[in-house]
Amino acid sequence: MSLFITLEGPEGSGKTSAMKIVLEQLKNDGYDIITTREPGGTPISEQIRNVILDKDNTKMDSITEAMLYAASRRQHLVEKIWPALKENKLVFCDRYLDSSLAYQGFARGNDVEKILEINKFATDGTFPDLTLLFDLEPEIGLERINKNKGREVNRLDLENITFHHKVREGYLILAARYQDRFVIIDASKPLEEVVEAAYQAIKNKLGE
Amino acid sequence: MSLFITLEGPEGSGKTSAMKIVLEQLKNDGYDIITTREPGGTPISEQIRNVILDKDNTKMDSITEAMLYAASRRQHLVEKIWPALKENKLVFCDRYLDSSLAYQGFARGNDVEKILEINKFATDGTFPDLTLLFDLEPEIGLERINKNKGREVNRLDLENITFHHKVREGYLILAARYQDRFVIIDASKPLEEVVEAAYQAIKNKLGE
Repeated sequence: MSLFITLEGPEGSGKTSAMKIVLEQLKNDGYDIITTREPGGTPISEQIRNVILDKDNTKMDSITEAMLYAASRRQHLVEKIWPALKENKLVFCDRYLDSSLAYQGFARGNDVEKILEINKFATDGTFPDLTLLFDLEPEIGLERINKNKGREVNRLDLENITFHHKVREGYLILAARYQDRFVIIDASKPLEEVVEAAYQAIKNKLGE
Repeated sequence: MSLFITLEGPEGSGKTSAMKIVLEQLKNDGYDIITTREPGGTPISEQIRNVILDKDNTKMDSITEAMLYAASRRQHLVEKIWPALKENKLVFCDRYLDSSLAYQGFARGNDVEKILEINKFATDGTFPDLTLLFDLEPEIGLERINKNKGREVNRLDLENITFHHKVREGYLILAARYQDRFVIIDASKPLEEVVEAAYQAIKNKLGE
């Protein structure tokens, strides 16, 4: 069976480290897996992202931006995700439309319903079968990131913390709204527990 | 009063020559006018168009393309058209969303309703107050273009003629659907008659 699984959560949540182990286990179980992340190595999606991320484009309207993200997402679906799902693979995508909703929508105060609408359109309504939300208090994530970088938490970090609280709240609202596909993983737990929780959530969805 | 007027029709319809005279007359009448055409000289819109027109992007999905056109259109609205309308100008835009519907929708066989939907979203439902459709049989347009270029109609031209018939039919379907804003100008008539018809249509809309 094919399954479309997305990974969401803040930086510092440890989702990359945990998923590396989970994916090894699933491969050992015999599953045919592909992993991707937007823009997914598709040249058109990359070109679109370059327009979004061009630091000279300070006049970019927030709806223009949301449309460009959605256009890039669609091209990634067309070239990579849809074909893999057709071939009955388990497709793991690091961040997908919930990131747009959490960051551009909830955290930056844009109209979440509009961003959802444009994404529904762009994806032909392709929602993930399963979304693993690696949930973490922003303060803990911040400490982890700084520890990795070997530096102290500074004033700028603390100014940004409100933004990261809004991101977290946005994700939690989405998890409540889409209970069928969201599984919240407590990313404050030790790595082995996070791995086990993620692995079990995937196995449950696979019906095993 | 502000008015948003779009100019539509095929190449060879003579809309540019005719509108040059019409706009002179309107300026003499004292109207505050701006003229624009997509991407409207806004750098973000131009960057988006470059992605669309990049000849290496052969894998571009038609909905991705429609979204990019719509995103470029929005930025043009945000930076140029909406501000001009707020300043009570008459805004003339050479081609607008009806071009997307006629060319990408009707002529190229993509889903017209989807292209309309994405454009409604991108424009916050900003339809023109008046759309002048410079209507012309494709064969006549083709003869005119070739005459200007000093060459004969060739085989390739004739192969393309079906496409241009579909464009024309698309425009006429839109004119029937949006009777309130569309005025069909018979572009096969002599220049002075075309000018007079366009001028009168604008004056009527201005209520004069």
